[in-house]
Amino acid sequence: MKRTYNFNAGPSALPEEVLQIAQKELLDFNQTGMSVMELSHRSKDFENVHNEAQRLLKQLLAIPDNYEILFLQGGASLQFPMIPMNFLSEDQVGNYVLTGVWSEKALKEAKILGLPTAIAASTKETNYDRIPNLSELAVSPDDGYLHITSNNTIYGTQWKEYPKVKDNLLIADMSSDILSKPLPIENFAMIYAGAQKNLGPSGVTVVILRKDLLEKTLNKQIPTMLRYDTHAKNNSLYNTPPTFSIYMLNKVLQWVSERGGVTGISKENELKASLIYDAIDESNGFYKGHALNNSRSLMNITFNLASEELSKKFLSEAKEAGFVGLNGHRSVGGCRASTYNAVPYEACKALQQFMLKFKQENSTSM
Amino acid sequence: MKRTYNFNAGPSALPEEVLQIAQKELLDFNQTGMSVMELSHRSKDFENVHNEAQRLLKQLLAIPDNYEILFLQGGASLQFPMIPMNFLSEDQVGNYVLTGVWSEKALKEAKILGLPTAIAASTKETNYDRIPNLSELAVSPDDGYLHITSNNTIYGTQWKEYPKVKDNLLIADMSSDILSKPLPIENFAMIYAGAQKNLGPSGVTVVILRKDLLEKTLNKQIPTMLRYDTHAKNNSLYNTPPTFSIYMLNKVLQWVSERGGVTGISKENELKASLIYDAIDESNGFYKGHALNNSRSLMNITFNLASEELSKKFLSEAKEAGFVGLNGHRSVGGCRASTYNAVPYEACKALQQFMLKFKQENSTSM
Repeated sequence: MKRTYNFNAGPSALPEEVLQIAQKELLDFNQTGMSVMELSHRSKDFENVHNEAQRLLKQLLAIPDNYEILFLQGGASLQFPMIPMNFLSEDQVGNYVLTGVWSEKALKEAKILGLPTAIAASTKETNYDRIPNLSELAVSPDDGYLHITSNNTIYGTQWKEYPKVKDNLLIADMSSDILSKPLPIENFAMIYAGAQKNLGPSGVTVVILRKDLLEKTLNKQIPTMLRYDTHAKNNSLYNTPPTFSIYMLNKVLQWVSERGGVTGISKENELKASLIYDAIDESNGFYKGHALNNSRSLMNITFNLASEELSKKFLSEAKEAGFVGLNGHRSVGGCRASTYNAVPYEACKALQQFMLKFKQENSTSM
Repeated sequence: MKRTYNFNAGPSALPEEVLQIAQKELLDFNQTGMSVMELSHRSKDFENVHNEAQRLLKQLLAIPDNYEILFLQGGASLQFPMIPMNFLSEDQVGNYVLTGVWSEKALKEAKILGLPTAIAASTKETNYDRIPNLSELAVSPDDGYLHITSNNTIYGTQWKEYPKVKDNLLIADMSSDILSKPLPIENFAMIYAGAQKNLGPSGVTVVILRKDLLEKTLNKQIPTMLRYDTHAKNNSLYNTPPTFSIYMLNKVLQWVSERGGVTGISKENELKASLIYDAIDESNGFYKGHALNNSRSLMNITFNLASEELSKKFLSEAKEAGFVGLNGHRSVGGCRASTYNAVPYEACKALQQFMLKFKQENSTSM
């Protein structure tokens, strides 16, 4: 069976090998005579899946022992209010770097809670076409944390180096680039990510949290499900977790391990993205990238054609040629190719070839 | 392949036919060349799945047009704080009927928020072995709602008729018996249920909400993800939903439709439960049911044997004979058989036979 060239922004492509294993054991997991979906979340069989996923993530990202690894629900969007709720107080400011719609949403939730906030920097003026330089960031000793969005799915920008802040109180929404490259975990107090881009299917959110942060929540009145210490104390089993999503996450982590871990995956990602960036850069302006060169994302490649009409023609012919998910987000328009870990090199090569061919056929119409 | 006799309390048995379909199309959903997990949640293909699940649930439970059907994350446990947060105010009391640990947890979350609460009735004194009579309930005109747990998984009790309260402001956690029988939806302002018992795999929570309740949230400062109106306005697509869980939910709803809907399923459930209750009642006290007869659940059958030692022997031999999930919850002990919609009649018959045989072999040891 031919697999579709899937460039969806998320939920997105999963490794074919992972899907094949999941298919094979869907009715009989580990000789239990049951689907993994039918296992009790308190059974030994499921516990092994859960703990192996934690262990693999810890190993792949070299996460030190003083961090908790949690598997939660609600997506990154539920983390937006949980972060200020758990970690801010009257005299500690939530400081946000705005690099797109998702950073704005994170900030908005802190404001709804009536907690003190600040904006360390913003590139909104130029429609979020770049990541601020580290020197542009306005930080303060009163910051409870500095919050960043490590990769901006909509605009196609990505942080290349991370700010080093006081007490390493850096919090990052890494939903769209976690596990795509090695990370200096020690720089971060917390990293969180919805799984549906690089980690697995939707329905589970990974949180990597430095343990000392849990103290900030101690004397707060917060709903039990919205406290990080609830989930830390209960190994993310306070209530029924999304078991199948965690099972798939575990399979994806195994797959990354077998491909040489994040170092191996990161090289593949560079090669894949450069195929498409080259097609843009060598097109003499036929394709125009949205992100400035030094902020370009290796996960989401955003570009426009000369006119809206031509973009539409491109998207329509690409669709016919079997490419899925190339429509840009409505706030940027044009085209976007998401080249997450599980998108094969061949799919990127095919897209490059399609872009070259389309340019050849349509250059005179400019 | 022989399927295991799965009596798990949740996550629990899924219909074999549903798992087979899911397996067949796991790598190629609806000729897309992609897994359903790889579809964008904003694609036509996924939208169809999502909307069909809503339509089927509406049809199966005869839900009137003035109710929203939402698919959320976080389980019933996240509904516990969301309900008082959205629907209570300084002068409206959250009134709770306590019939077990889950009702207690629901009440606790309202208290954490500092909102006014009351206890309409409680059967804690007798270790939650029964549902209160409707005449025992202390309700008041100040009640913002009356909250009940329709079926108590741990104790094996179930409401047989529902209270009729002012403005039908009745809210029910139906996690463990939704879709097991027809319901007088009009009596309820809201029904919610984690999917992992009768509706599908874990990871999605179904909320059926009367639309006029949304007005109660209008002037409140609540995190966006915790507002019901956010999800109502966005057809549960405010952020990425748990797409695979919703897909499985849809398949389970199709399966129930094909079996004669909730009326058909309800008759099957009565037959299944009576097999096991008969084995208890006709055992001359060898098996002792925990729940009082008029409160007995058709979903979770709880019983003890004469001694802890004998219970252990029963559980150990049952496990060897291929029965899974019969251990009672630690707060009641003994044994529990969960006979949700997807547990086949044959499994219940096999358990009945096993119980009779075990009694025969062990009666003299009493």
